[in-house]
Amino acid sequence: MSSHEVEILTVGDELLRGEIVDVNSSTIARRLLDVGLQVEMSVTVGDEKDEIINALREMARRSRVVMVTGGLGPTQDDRTAEAAAEAFGRRLILHEGALERIKTIFRKYGLELTPNNMKQAYVPEDAQVIINPVGTAPGFGFKEGGCLLVFLPGVPREVESMLGEVIERLVKPHCSPGTAVRSRMFRIFGMTESKIDQLMKGALDSLEGVSLASLPHYPENRLRVVARASTPQKAEELLLEAQRRIEERLGDCVYGFDDEELEVVVWRLLYESGRTLAVAESCTGGLIAHRITNVPGSSEVFLRGFVAYSPQAKVELLGVPPSVLEREGAVSATVAEAMARGARERAGADLAVASTGIAGPSGGTEDKPVGTVYLALADSNGAWSKRFLFRGERGQIKITASTAALDWLRLYLQGRNPQQYEIPWSWRGP
Amino acid sequence: MSSHEVEILTVGDELLRGEIVDVNSSTIARRLLDVGLQVEMSVTVGDEKDEIINALREMARRSRVVMVTGGLGPTQDDRTAEAAAEAFGRRLILHEGALERIKTIFRKYGLELTPNNMKQAYVPEDAQVIINPVGTAPGFGFKEGGCLLVFLPGVPREVESMLGEVIERLVKPHCSPGTAVRSRMFRIFGMTESKIDQLMKGALDSLEGVSLASLPHYPENRLRVVARASTPQKAEELLLEAQRRIEERLGDCVYGFDDEELEVVVWRLLYESGRTLAVAESCTGGLIAHRITNVPGSSEVFLRGFVAYSPQAKVELLGVPPSVLEREGAVSATVAEAMARGARERAGADLAVASTGIAGPSGGTEDKPVGTVYLALADSNGAWSKRFLFRGERGQIKITASTAALDWLRLYLQGRNPQQYEIPWSWRGP
Repeated sequence: MSSHEVEILTVGDELLRGEIVDVNSSTIARRLLDVGLQVEMSVTVGDEKDEIINALREMARRSRVVMVTGGLGPTQDDRTAEAAAEAFGRRLILHEGALERIKTIFRKYGLELTPNNMKQAYVPEDAQVIINPVGTAPGFGFKEGGCLLVFLPGVPREVESMLGEVIERLVKPHCSPGTAVRSRMFRIFGMTESKIDQLMKGALDSLEGVSLASLPHYPENRLRVVARASTPQKAEELLLEAQRRIEERLGDCVYGFDDEELEVVVWRLLYESGRTLAVAESCTGGLIAHRITNVPGSSEVFLRGFVAYSPQAKVELLGVPPSVLEREGAVSATVAEAMARGARERAGADLAVASTGIAGPSGGTEDKPVGTVYLALADSNGAWSKRFLFRGERGQIKITASTAALDWLRLYLQGRNPQQYEIPWSWRGP
Repeated sequence: MSSHEVEILTVGDELLRGEIVDVNSSTIARRLLDVGLQVEMSVTVGDEKDEIINALREMARRSRVVMVTGGLGPTQDDRTAEAAAEAFGRRLILHEGALERIKTIFRKYGLELTPNNMKQAYVPEDAQVIINPVGTAPGFGFKEGGCLLVFLPGVPREVESMLGEVIERLVKPHCSPGTAVRSRMFRIFGMTESKIDQLMKGALDSLEGVSLASLPHYPENRLRVVARASTPQKAEELLLEAQRRIEERLGDCVYGFDDEELEVVVWRLLYESGRTLAVAESCTGGLIAHRITNVPGSSEVFLRGFVAYSPQAKVELLGVPPSVLEREGAVSATVAEAMARGARERAGADLAVASTGIAGPSGGTEDKPVGTVYLALADSNGAWSKRFLFRGERGQIKITASTAALDWLRLYLQGRNPQQYEIPWSWRGP
């Protein structure tokens, strides 16, 4: 195989048995890309020491940087530090700073220090140690020939907390990339991947150094643009021109950029316009409220949520007339609108959104199959509702419905007519 | 490297740029383990055709089965089918069944068929085609020497929907493993990984063919036991003995097995005892309701949820006395208990749980730092509350608090004294 800039090695039987998902590789790749380093291969091996040693030696031969995660924990099957030492003929030595850190944590949380926790303070000789601010296992790095090898624990939030220092103290001094790289992710809802691909075809061809990748990210789609140039300024200019062309073609469907979740965009629009929100949820079961309250500062705009699961709750909490429930059923346009209106009035909020539908797996009928969802939006002028048919399992229907509700609210807050909301990949009934 | 039973290849620049997380590898690994096949290495490469070809040839040389995901989509950077054909000198041919399937989907959802969608109907000659029941890209498989190569699209729910058929029609006929394998995952909440490791040390040593792996899975921990024997019955017996020993040592902290989420366990306990539930959430912001309503059939036991984010909402929705709010603050034992009592009474439910706390990043004080959470549980005899200090970011505090609430409810439903609930890794204040 060809020579690579960066390779990632993740270690753990639990990964090869499918018991956990590897999120560290993507975190590391994203952070390295921000400093212009491209991961070119990623490998996962189990806890067998020989497999780790083989992989380390092979990767060190063909790469400039090798980032390793996993196998630094306190248990008997954590063998990465041992393998790292053995692969390159180094001894393991006790690191006093790391040991002190472990003792401090155990004291702070009143935990009993077990002997296997002390094992985590041993690192290969001549390694630079990176203290773990949120856990016990330190990270470390050393050079072997022209390759920098960095070792981090496997717990995702520990990796995240250490990456900044790893990149500044170890990776950047080792690599000084000659190319400036800028990248941006465009977050899109309400357009299929094929449609996006078709609209974008050739759009960026004249921009040398710019590449585009389409990333389905259920129920959204994402476009990643990477611009490479000789200077940071030129790369930034390329990126801005690419952004202009993308927004021209995809319009309103682009709801945000990079790490900006849809709920953050909605929160910002509410906050900036000084408006408050209430939500009334049946089929989404609290998910809309959960997403909004994930945003720091959400208490400034979010007043209350009603999870009105039973018919009685819809009547008592939201003032839905029992006669309407009986005549039209809980899954209907009138009930959705009454829920939104009731939530808005009772919470004293400027706006409300509501959901009622059939998340499945049972409860569907011929008229209203599983996936049928009515969403409603209410403001001081009244309430509007829309019918959708969402595909997938219960969890997916909840996610898609909550995303559509937030996206509708976003477009409303951006001044669009609430009656014109559409998402083409859902079937809309009578 | 040594010869491997199964290797996984995932393809996609988006993976190497960290834009999406690879969940397919773990799904595949888990399903193969169920039929006794162990994945021994997993590799990710980008969309470069040559990199895919190199990886495929190398993996086919050293493995009995190679499972490939990604790069079968409609866009220009989807090159896996082409690479698969070229790697082993095969032509790509149009598969009529796959084309028909694509046309049907587009008709059903009223979508426009673009030419790049038709590209997905081309597969390498002599391949067996696996129709994709939830998407457009078919899967396919062929043998090369002694190796079976299987290709699936990259969308996780498509992989999940096709794996059953892939294993039955392609993998099982190719491999007839001589060893019977049974595995079980034990789900644990409220015990540190080190403590579990210490308690389990040596516990399974006398059981030949049984291995144990510890898997931190924030905020839970998990133990995976794999039992190998000459017959399925012997493997099952080994597994049962391992289970007996684990439960003896870890006791109440084991809340479930395999795919059984904590909310499913709680739902089952409620359902079987004929009791109903209401929730009143402040700092968890709808997450407890969301988790409960993720369970199919939750409407049988879950009546309603109150997301009482503002002080006014706590007063109006749940009847928390304004004087108590003023005297003790919203984050207090008395308010948590009043919320649980109010939710239970107003919903007409048998039980209620409530949360109030400081999820951060701001809002903490010296007395009540970020992470301080009061949970309460109410039944017909009254209400109890507990104070916790949870570590981490806003999202983690919400998750841990919702898990603790559900776990407390589980133990209550299993007959434990609600006043004795403890989780050792959180600090409990005065």
